[in-house]
Amino acid sequence: MHVNKKIAVVGSGLVGTLLAIYLKKLGHEVHVLDRSKDIRTIDFSGRSINLAMSTRGWRALENIGIADQVHAIGIPMNKRAIHIANQELKYQPYGMNSESIFSISRGGLNKLLIDIAEKEGVHFHFETRIWDVELATATLFTGESEFGAWQALQYDMVFGADGAFSRIRHRMQRQNRFNYSQHFLNTGYKELHIPADANGSHQLDKNSFHIWPRGEFMLIALPNLDGSFTCTLFMPFEGAISFEQLTNVQQVATFFETYFPDTKNLIPNLTHDFFKNPTSSLVTMQCYPWVYQDKIALIGDAAHAIVPFYGQGMNAGFEDVTVLAELIAQHNGDWQTILETYQQARKPNADAIAELSYRNHTEMSTKTADESFLLQKKIEQHFAKKYPEKWLPLYDRVTFSHDSYLSALQIGDKQNYIMQQVLQIPNIDAIWDSEIVEQTIISLLEK
Amino acid sequence: MHVNKKIAVVGSGLVGTLLAIYLKKLGHEVHVLDRSKDIRTIDFSGRSINLAMSTRGWRALENIGIADQVHAIGIPMNKRAIHIANQELKYQPYGMNSESIFSISRGGLNKLLIDIAEKEGVHFHFETRIWDVELATATLFTGESEFGAWQALQYDMVFGADGAFSRIRHRMQRQNRFNYSQHFLNTGYKELHIPADANGSHQLDKNSFHIWPRGEFMLIALPNLDGSFTCTLFMPFEGAISFEQLTNVQQVATFFETYFPDTKNLIPNLTHDFFKNPTSSLVTMQCYPWVYQDKIALIGDAAHAIVPFYGQGMNAGFEDVTVLAELIAQHNGDWQTILETYQQARKPNADAIAELSYRNHTEMSTKTADESFLLQKKIEQHFAKKYPEKWLPLYDRVTFSHDSYLSALQIGDKQNYIMQQVLQIPNIDAIWDSEIVEQTIISLLEK
Repeated sequence: MHVNKKIAVVGSGLVGTLLAIYLKKLGHEVHVLDRSKDIRTIDFSGRSINLAMSTRGWRALENIGIADQVHAIGIPMNKRAIHIANQELKYQPYGMNSESIFSISRGGLNKLLIDIAEKEGVHFHFETRIWDVELATATLFTGESEFGAWQALQYDMVFGADGAFSRIRHRMQRQNRFNYSQHFLNTGYKELHIPADANGSHQLDKNSFHIWPRGEFMLIALPNLDGSFTCTLFMPFEGAISFEQLTNVQQVATFFETYFPDTKNLIPNLTHDFFKNPTSSLVTMQCYPWVYQDKIALIGDAAHAIVPFYGQGMNAGFEDVTVLAELIAQHNGDWQTILETYQQARKPNADAIAELSYRNHTEMSTKTADESFLLQKKIEQHFAKKYPEKWLPLYDRVTFSHDSYLSALQIGDKQNYIMQQVLQIPNIDAIWDSEIVEQTIISLLEK
Repeated sequence: MHVNKKIAVVGSGLVGTLLAIYLKKLGHEVHVLDRSKDIRTIDFSGRSINLAMSTRGWRALENIGIADQVHAIGIPMNKRAIHIANQELKYQPYGMNSESIFSISRGGLNKLLIDIAEKEGVHFHFETRIWDVELATATLFTGESEFGAWQALQYDMVFGADGAFSRIRHRMQRQNRFNYSQHFLNTGYKELHIPADANGSHQLDKNSFHIWPRGEFMLIALPNLDGSFTCTLFMPFEGAISFEQLTNVQQVATFFETYFPDTKNLIPNLTHDFFKNPTSSLVTMQCYPWVYQDKIALIGDAAHAIVPFYGQGMNAGFEDVTVLAELIAQHNGDWQTILETYQQARKPNADAIAELSYRNHTEMSTKTADESFLLQKKIEQHFAKKYPEKWLPLYDRVTFSHDSYLSALQIGDKQNYIMQQVLQIPNIDAIWDSEIVEQTIISLLEK
């Protein structure tokens, strides 16, 4: 039986705020608590790396009728623009059916979602620091400092949407038999900026996701509405070519002239921004269980933080919300069952997208510059267009479908195995669209 | 240059106390702090699962001349005694050269080491709770409660030897780029007891490590000096046959009668102990880095907690101490280098023994009851005896050698691959000691 609950969502980020809207629409009393200031009152956009909204993210917005408002602040990117050193720009279309992913400002989207949530009647409590949670009673403890006096706030349920370093999870971690891992990449990232030109227009093709793949390191650029691009340099922290080696203005300037000469006139504040902006780290965080009885559940990055190389972090978190909403509808009021089936349904998929995202680091930084890889993609696209019922490329399944991440990983591995065989065919670069190649793929698929 | 340091070792367990003895012998001022009471003042032995001391552990004791005192409280076990249901007892020798592992009471050994350390002049501070550490200054914070007033204790260096749930590591975990994982088995364990007979003698062969392998679950028994055996039941927490299913005296009695009928008269207090003793969990904990500059280092379980199925937990921790002592001798007084090379030397080996220990769960509970596995062991032993320069079985390399755990894992994988080929030879159980088999192994080794 449906009973209205008093629910706390810890974290006013994208997933927490979206979840709050869903829960409020179902009739619950919803409180969102966040240690930070209201993002709408500050200029800084918060988290970096522009988002790439794709099919799973859109569905979560469509379900509650707010996709159009978000579309209005997104820029479609229907291809990768690959800047290989000393070569002409290459384009690689993203989707089989000309689909796009959408570049959206994280801060802009977050502000919009909070506005929508507030209009729905969600209560926001900013600058409210949660230090601990009592799992069995869904009680949050808040106060000025970790070691000062705390106030107890009691709810019927608490959702931990408080990100990769979640306080709610921190308490769950102290339970016996709680599995947990955090693994940092040796690669870090730094944000840079390509401003609009004098006319306020984009200086590079605005409907592309731009990549400068250089093996161990790479630069990417995503378009913003104001004509600028947000650039991100991904590079090892230590080693021969690394952040550690770039300690002064001259070194940074020489590095960019050597490896990214075509960006020379695009990033005017290069050395200033390089030393002003932090070098940030990238973590994969996995844990289990995600829920405690009918009281507590982790969602989004708090349950499964992943590296950004598949552009699926927010999309995976939004899909958590979609699945949770389906289960709420299915198990009317039985929260114990809702939460248990939620974690069982999502955990294998969270692990799968973590693995796919980790692997895509190599794909983006190295393979996009590799002729054999580009040939493989071409063969796949060709075959998939002719036999769409036999082949959906991995990228499309992850980005433009609602198939589970787990099946994407499994089918993707099988497809990759087949393509490795196909690439062994003598003279493959000449006969890549021949009957023989097609028949080889079909027979390998049937094995 | 050697300078005497004021060093804190957090944790008065086996590894912490042994390390303290080493450091004190080198001339340092050494303080061991432990949240618990002095184990010498309490009857309870502390941690369960008897230890199996083997070659790596012995070396750490021999280096400082205390091996004989420990030998006096150990019982050699030169074989597995395998209790397969409805079959005669089978024996499987442990070492190629009749080596033994030694059953030793954890509590007894701990008391002995603390006595030795105290005589050397190590300062022990029991019932001293460490709540936090400032890494850069090697300052420990102690106090009655986590949220009360704390006292700062400053040292030149701090070693975290405070076990799998280390407080020192807890602080290091909050650093950026700290990799960490804790993974619990779905199998738990419970201690039981086989008392001595009326004459004070052992009721089973005392020089054997007894196993009752039953697939998903197993019982083991290790001899104690007083004629008793410490038994441990390993079994899944949940499932068809699991701790969860055994909720009353009748169920436990029936379970033992069904699966371990030969223990009927050996465990008189079965049902009493079963419900009195806790069901404990088993964790693999991995992390990195282990050190902070020249100030802080993790050692033993605090750096690498493993499951007990290879009997190497304490041995690996003692080998940490041996290696650290070698590096101290090598890099006289340069603690930054000592700690950095210590973690680089030990981390790959800690990961390797974690993996080997995890795998050995299946070997013990399932494979020891498998004819094909026993045949494999027989072939390996036969070949290794004839060609000792070509083959040292994995168990021997881990348990009775000082080869690195990492090379044990790598060579072990190659050997296992070879043996899987050999077991495919037609009629292998009849011709297992033939020339053909030998030649097959030799040619596979040379590949």
